[in-house]
Amino acid sequence: MDLLSIKDPSFLKGLNRKQLEKLSADIRRFLIETLSKTGGHIGPNLGVVELTIALHTCFDSPKDKLIWDVGHQSYVHKILTGRAGQFETLRQYKGLCGFPKMSESEHDVWETGHSSTSLSAAMGMAIARDVKKEKNFVIPIIGDGALTGGMALEALNHIGHEQKDMIVVLNDNEMSIAPNVGALHNVLGKLRTAGKYQWAKEELEYLMKKIPAVGGKLAATAEKVKDSLKYLLVSGVFFEELGFTYLGPVDGHDYDALFENIAYAKKTKGPVLLHVITKKGKGYRPAEHDKVGTWHGTGQYKIETGDFIKPVNTAPSWSALVSETVRKLARKDERIVAVTPAMPVGSKLEGFASEFPDRMFDVGIAEQHAATMAAGLASQQMKPFLAIYSTFLQRAYDQVLHDISRQNLNVFIGVDRAGLVGADGETHQGVFDVAFLRHLPNMVLMMPKDENEGQHMVQTAIAYDDGPIAMRFPRGNGYGVPMDEELKQIPIGSWEVLKKGKDAVILTFGTTIPMALDAANRLEKQGISVQVVNARFIKPMDEAMLHDIFQNHLPVLSIEEAVLQGGFGSAVMEFAHDHGYHHASIDRIGIPDRFIEHGSVKELLKEIGLTPENIMVKIKSLIPKKQKRA
Amino acid sequence: MDLLSIKDPSFLKGLNRKQLEKLSADIRRFLIETLSKTGGHIGPNLGVVELTIALHTCFDSPKDKLIWDVGHQSYVHKILTGRAGQFETLRQYKGLCGFPKMSESEHDVWETGHSSTSLSAAMGMAIARDVKKEKNFVIPIIGDGALTGGMALEALNHIGHEQKDMIVVLNDNEMSIAPNVGALHNVLGKLRTAGKYQWAKEELEYLMKKIPAVGGKLAATAEKVKDSLKYLLVSGVFFEELGFTYLGPVDGHDYDALFENIAYAKKTKGPVLLHVITKKGKGYRPAEHDKVGTWHGTGQYKIETGDFIKPVNTAPSWSALVSETVRKLARKDERIVAVTPAMPVGSKLEGFASEFPDRMFDVGIAEQHAATMAAGLASQQMKPFLAIYSTFLQRAYDQVLHDISRQNLNVFIGVDRAGLVGADGETHQGVFDVAFLRHLPNMVLMMPKDENEGQHMVQTAIAYDDGPIAMRFPRGNGYGVPMDEELKQIPIGSWEVLKKGKDAVILTFGTTIPMALDAANRLEKQGISVQVVNARFIKPMDEAMLHDIFQNHLPVLSIEEAVLQGGFGSAVMEFAHDHGYHHASIDRIGIPDRFIEHGSVKELLKEIGLTPENIMVKIKSLIPKKQKRA
Repeated sequence: MDLLSIKDPSFLKGLNRKQLEKLSADIRRFLIETLSKTGGHIGPNLGVVELTIALHTCFDSPKDKLIWDVGHQSYVHKILTGRAGQFETLRQYKGLCGFPKMSESEHDVWETGHSSTSLSAAMGMAIARDVKKEKNFVIPIIGDGALTGGMALEALNHIGHEQKDMIVVLNDNEMSIAPNVGALHNVLGKLRTAGKYQWAKEELEYLMKKIPAVGGKLAATAEKVKDSLKYLLVSGVFFEELGFTYLGPVDGHDYDALFENIAYAKKTKGPVLLHVITKKGKGYRPAEHDKVGTWHGTGQYKIETGDFIKPVNTAPSWSALVSETVRKLARKDERIVAVTPAMPVGSKLEGFASEFPDRMFDVGIAEQHAATMAAGLASQQMKPFLAIYSTFLQRAYDQVLHDISRQNLNVFIGVDRAGLVGADGETHQGVFDVAFLRHLPNMVLMMPKDENEGQHMVQTAIAYDDGPIAMRFPRGNGYGVPMDEELKQIPIGSWEVLKKGKDAVILTFGTTIPMALDAANRLEKQGISVQVVNARFIKPMDEAMLHDIFQNHLPVLSIEEAVLQGGFGSAVMEFAHDHGYHHASIDRIGIPDRFIEHGSVKELLKEIGLTPENIMVKIKSLIPKKQKRA
Repeated sequence: MDLLSIKDPSFLKGLNRKQLEKLSADIRRFLIETLSKTGGHIGPNLGVVELTIALHTCFDSPKDKLIWDVGHQSYVHKILTGRAGQFETLRQYKGLCGFPKMSESEHDVWETGHSSTSLSAAMGMAIARDVKKEKNFVIPIIGDGALTGGMALEALNHIGHEQKDMIVVLNDNEMSIAPNVGALHNVLGKLRTAGKYQWAKEELEYLMKKIPAVGGKLAATAEKVKDSLKYLLVSGVFFEELGFTYLGPVDGHDYDALFENIAYAKKTKGPVLLHVITKKGKGYRPAEHDKVGTWHGTGQYKIETGDFIKPVNTAPSWSALVSETVRKLARKDERIVAVTPAMPVGSKLEGFASEFPDRMFDVGIAEQHAATMAAGLASQQMKPFLAIYSTFLQRAYDQVLHDISRQNLNVFIGVDRAGLVGADGETHQGVFDVAFLRHLPNMVLMMPKDENEGQHMVQTAIAYDDGPIAMRFPRGNGYGVPMDEELKQIPIGSWEVLKKGKDAVILTFGTTIPMALDAANRLEKQGISVQVVNARFIKPMDEAMLHDIFQNHLPVLSIEEAVLQGGFGSAVMEFAHDHGYHHASIDRIGIPDRFIEHGSVKELLKEIGLTPENIMVKIKSLIPKKQKRA
């Protein structure tokens, strides 16, 4: 059918099985074709085609609340709710968001991006419904990986206790972003194979009826034995213990099974866990055969071969640079242990893992545990490398504060995907870490200007033994600069003058250095001489250099790809006023006080004024007299 | 025995049962007497006397690692490790800390304060041990309440998966700080009574043997049935599912049972969960009979009667003021729902709970779930009041950012215990919230000058419908000011001039207003005229007033009982420079860049220079010319 003609999911109710199968195939073809041009989360979405169609057939969205955990598997939902026509703009500037977005559709009742939030949101919606005495279904759809996140477990516990009506769909695709980790996964593994025990259960029930009553004792036991059948064959014991009615496992690509179980779930009082087995990448062979998560989210690819269309930049990724340097150092230093919350591939830790399997720990989607476990390691004189994306480090804020920074433990935090990340958009921008790490006592925070300085910073971090040290680095690849053979330490708190100048000073770090140099070079031609400083240590700052700058009455422009409120520029202001430089002219460029949506990093930088042109304007306004003379 | 003579726990190994009983009684008497003068966490510590003695008898601390979750139950541990003599200074300035503290003793291998961290720390220590090929036991001791915290569940999952040797002691006291909540608690409840099913289990095993083999089918089923016995009678099924060897439940006041089970746990490979039942307040009748948590932590009390020695201040507590005002408004507004993560008593929500049982949700120790559930409620046009301590709000940072502030949902966050909290010390000081809430887009953050303004702020927060709004308020009681009958709304972002002045301006909010007024009054006598502003909105600020101040070239002193890095004073600097007031003289007083230990709030304020005297010094240095003229 013409997917572009879909307005809302109401048309689904009239379709027979054959039409549904046809629709599934059409959607799969649409996704494979469209995403080959735009990139996106292909694997997860191919896996939930039938599940999404079944849910929209059996429920009445938006009255019934479909809540997509993480949300990157919401493409089919977007197609069914009238957005197929916008898929050419997927994850592009001003285009369709890769996650649920309330402003796009009334069917997006909850926005996600970070994992494991759907059960808590659903609980809030269920309470609201009951307080308002309304009638509707609340249906969070959560993956097996997201279920290991602490807040999802907190929510399961509370939902089981309150016994609110709710249908939790466990989308068990046997592979979260990385091969799944944890005891909970083993439980799910048992559930997956429970089907074959069905005969045994029936057999036992039959036998139970045939056993003659052996005195009073057995009679007393009989009820227990009957109850125990639910435990007997493992089926759903974990969730039933928590107070859920467990249904499944259901084949998530079989409409009959889905309809039957959803219908049963709708009739069941209290919380239901509907365990659905799906296959990531279903219907597209390259994605189906993916075992490590390459097809979780992709860029452009050739449909026929499944070959990725590589970007031109072949410099190593920042993640690889950092993880491989840690690996190199780990050969000489047994204290080094790597910890990742479910991102071994994204953080490029495969090499470390294969070389040091006993010193590599993927803890699953469990950022809080990862951070405090790293602190536990450091308390025993180990040197943990905590590889974590900036946006996910937010979830371990208290652990970094209370366990790492307060106890002043030697944890090396590799803050990956720092700054704007582009297509993933506002839930994933790594722009808060400067502000929230900078105010933690004992914390050292740095960002390199290029990958060569980056490798030296890794060495610096490993050698540092006076507390926590965090190195932020951007998404994507380095510049391809020449790399020193020998690693060296960079003095903590030392900045570097990249370009001398006498009219004004730019203080910046990391990704914004090139635009600062560009602006300075262009200003030079206009007769304005601007000093550019690589302020590679955000904390502690280079106080000697700052004293110099302010004693020389040089106006300062700070530039950061991070939120301005309480950020690096504010630290510069704090320094100036704390030291009595109340005459100091200081201006800042950075991320303004709002969330930044998806788009290419270049477009986003332009939107918020992180451009050479804006830097030039700001510098000129800081030195008005010079400007007039020029 | 003379507890003061204890140097370390090694003396325990030579004691017989009778001597151990005597020691237990001595420690109980010591705790009851000492804490009647100092106050402290009496209930939890009376509950773990035998458990702590047994652990120190069976293990070799500090080689073996005892990790006290939350840590307020570590008093017995402190006595056994040579610190009885310091108990007179418990929780006092420069005195014994109420929580484990590495600087006090080598036996404190891990510091706690916030709950649910011990399992992650233990996992880090177990990995470190194995990488270093050392031999020692790792023993986290965690309460049933702390176990509902998401990070503890994340850790359980990972520990079960990795199968590291570890003995987790579940200290199940049937009552965490508040009556426990959640499905997990029900599981524990079943475990508690599992003892009486022992006969049934044996009976069934006997029957199983007697049943004749009924063809091949039963034979095939038999093994499953045998396996199923562990599920059959519920005993430990939850933990065994996660990969733990479950031992217990054990009477935590019975030395024989404790020794036997600990010995068995020491011989067991892989992770063990030792389920110990203890009674909070054991041995002191008033504390034993406590059902709501009054005896969890106390001030001074009369030993004979258990009567609390009340402080003189009889003004209502801030918590009561806020919760009772919310309750009053809830009578007219059905959208209002209260959410607390395990602090219904501390947050004084008992009245709300009894009047609106269907609109009150204690979610257990689960700050993340609480915040996102509040967002879920708000997404359905409810008005959730999230009552949470400042220090615990840290654990929901990502949820406040990603779910509440990013979706711009109308959640009213009551940030209790904001500022210095005193005796609980560095893990509990509520000093980071200004810095970490201020940089969140859409967030309104306010703090009242007194309880009358406080009640109006509650009204303001409930009426506000343009996104999240947080009101911070301090620990303890109000001033006893007259209260308006009628509630009114305070214009968002409006400040209030409390005292006019023409030489300088003090911008401050909440608890520091009295010292600012005091300083201003004293300066006036010296001829210096200082304006004092109640900067009750930390975000957004009163921009009109700020323009006025800077246009009039008035020097500014900001004062805040919160961290200076990225705090309110920095916001003032940001405003000044963003608007081109580069001449502005701005100085700040607040919490410096280090953790603040325990002590009375007054002593701590003095230590960090939050005093009228220091304010006077700062003001004078900001207006040197005036000072000379005066």
